[in-house]
Amino acid sequence: MGYRVAIIGATGAVGWELLRILEERDFPVDSLRLFASERSAGKSLCFRGETVRVETLREGAFKGIEIAFFSAGAPRSREFAPKAVQAGALVIDNSSAFRLDPEVPLVIPEINGESMRSHKGIIANPNCSSIILLMALAPLRSLTRIKRVIVSTYQAASGAGAQAMQELLDATRAYLQGEPFEPRVLPHPYAFNLFSHNSPVGSDGYNEEERKILLESRKILNEPELAISATCVRVPVLRAHSESIHVELEHRPPLAAIRAAYQAFAGVRLVDDRERNHFPMPIEATGRDEVLVGRLREDTALPNGLALFACGDQLRKGAALNAVQIAEIMVQSPP
Amino acid sequence: MGYRVAIIGATGAVGWELLRILEERDFPVDSLRLFASERSAGKSLCFRGETVRVETLREGAFKGIEIAFFSAGAPRSREFAPKAVQAGALVIDNSSAFRLDPEVPLVIPEINGESMRSHKGIIANPNCSSIILLMALAPLRSLTRIKRVIVSTYQAASGAGAQAMQELLDATRAYLQGEPFEPRVLPHPYAFNLFSHNSPVGSDGYNEEERKILLESRKILNEPELAISATCVRVPVLRAHSESIHVELEHRPPLAAIRAAYQAFAGVRLVDDRERNHFPMPIEATGRDEVLVGRLREDTALPNGLALFACGDQLRKGAALNAVQIAEIMVQSPP
Repeated sequence: MGYRVAIIGATGAVGWELLRILEERDFPVDSLRLFASERSAGKSLCFRGETVRVETLREGAFKGIEIAFFSAGAPRSREFAPKAVQAGALVIDNSSAFRLDPEVPLVIPEINGESMRSHKGIIANPNCSSIILLMALAPLRSLTRIKRVIVSTYQAASGAGAQAMQELLDATRAYLQGEPFEPRVLPHPYAFNLFSHNSPVGSDGYNEEERKILLESRKILNEPELAISATCVRVPVLRAHSESIHVELEHRPPLAAIRAAYQAFAGVRLVDDRERNHFPMPIEATGRDEVLVGRLREDTALPNGLALFACGDQLRKGAALNAVQIAEIMVQSPP
Repeated sequence: MGYRVAIIGATGAVGWELLRILEERDFPVDSLRLFASERSAGKSLCFRGETVRVETLREGAFKGIEIAFFSAGAPRSREFAPKAVQAGALVIDNSSAFRLDPEVPLVIPEINGESMRSHKGIIANPNCSSIILLMALAPLRSLTRIKRVIVSTYQAASGAGAQAMQELLDATRAYLQGEPFEPRVLPHPYAFNLFSHNSPVGSDGYNEEERKILLESRKILNEPELAISATCVRVPVLRAHSESIHVELEHRPPLAAIRAAYQAFAGVRLVDDRERNHFPMPIEATGRDEVLVGRLREDTALPNGLALFACGDQLRKGAALNAVQIAEIMVQSPP
């Protein structure tokens, strides 16, 4: 007894990861349809040892689909997700299209799983940086209230898609061979360089990624006034985001209690070995389901402050895994 | 009329940069002696078109030296700087050996140049991350008092020396060729990875680099109670450090006034083009004397808060240039 599943944006970095995670977690897929843009039409992808042909997204594509994972960008979600809902599908949308819509639950299952019950056909998957930040803060929230959050990110190429990952490799290879390289996907040279996040900057000086972290965190935590600011930076790393997080707490529990809360929290793994200088690193977060958290220490600047450092696989918990977790809950206990 | 100058640690990354900056700025060098460890004995370096042989550092080496730049690590400074002073030299020390000694001025000429007047033979050059942070904050301090600083760094390989820069290149080349690579200089794999700063971590959870930023900033600004915290991270970048800085101000001047203060401040360059998403980047800070500052915006988390982003060449203003600037002031207007 499985479900008729569709992936929209199947040939992208997140689409590929969705396929792998549905396989790994043995999600009850009865039939699978894959959609992508014209560019990818004719391609085929492998799922459970069988070949699935990629179709072009068009009117009427969703007939019979029960669960549709969207990961093809906000414009495509805005156009096609309502059609999928109309056709009877539950949409789990990885784009930013509906995240701030008050009618659409924005869900990290470990944090506000109950909110998905009120869905009207669409459940939104948060931005990757928001998910990693909030997973890193979740164990703390079981101990005290978080009053203030200041986060600086170290974001991987994967957040800008598979082509950006390729560009990082190509640009670096060219640099090492002393050859010129013209960026195509990202706006700045990427080899051994970093730059402010490549999303448009608003009149308040914040880029879209930073605004997502602010607004999505407030919505997911249901704290519309949460004091939070973010600086988002793209670093030459392939596929796990890191975040330096400084928080002000209502009161600061003993560090031992904080560590215990992190050790007990599913989906988070404490990596905090001061003696061996071993803390969360992108290469160790890559391919893992858990968000790695470490460098737990009293913050010397903020009252009742705590500083920490987190790394999470941007394509897994930051995107595909979180979406599949939402689907799992929906099929295990339908509303 | 020039000076008899010595460089101790001449074959390191900072030593090499010292030679170039003394040349570029036409520092009045009458004679130059270069010292390094046994490992480099017999090497020669080029200065103003002439070849200078590298000598091994030993007892009595400083006879006749008037200005000695030390950049060979704290143990060597601790052992030999007092001997150079005894021999009559002014020591400008780039190591951490004397930075927190209350008898030793710790100087960024643009910020606390006057403090060097009280030297007793040694003037300390601050840590590179401290210099870049404080240069980025200096224009603000002409407008208002800084109450709180939270900084997360993105530090280049060069801060760990020339060998670490080579390791970043070698590790990345090996990664791209699918070959194994065993780190020798840094404790973790560096190709497309980042990690918490590779200095020892204390019982408070802060590593030495973070403690330097805290204690040196307080000393240089002469604000022993300044609320400041740092997270220091090594990123796969060759030679310019970046810093994400969030500050709380006593009051927040209009952004236009803040921008004007940055434009007017010598040693800082405003790079803050929101429309073209062009902000400070390591590749543009490399080889430059100025610290690049941008992303100026109201901080959404801190009262009277301001967020900004800075990049500075870790070997120039972060080390060699600052040291030569100190020497220039001392020779132009001796106490």
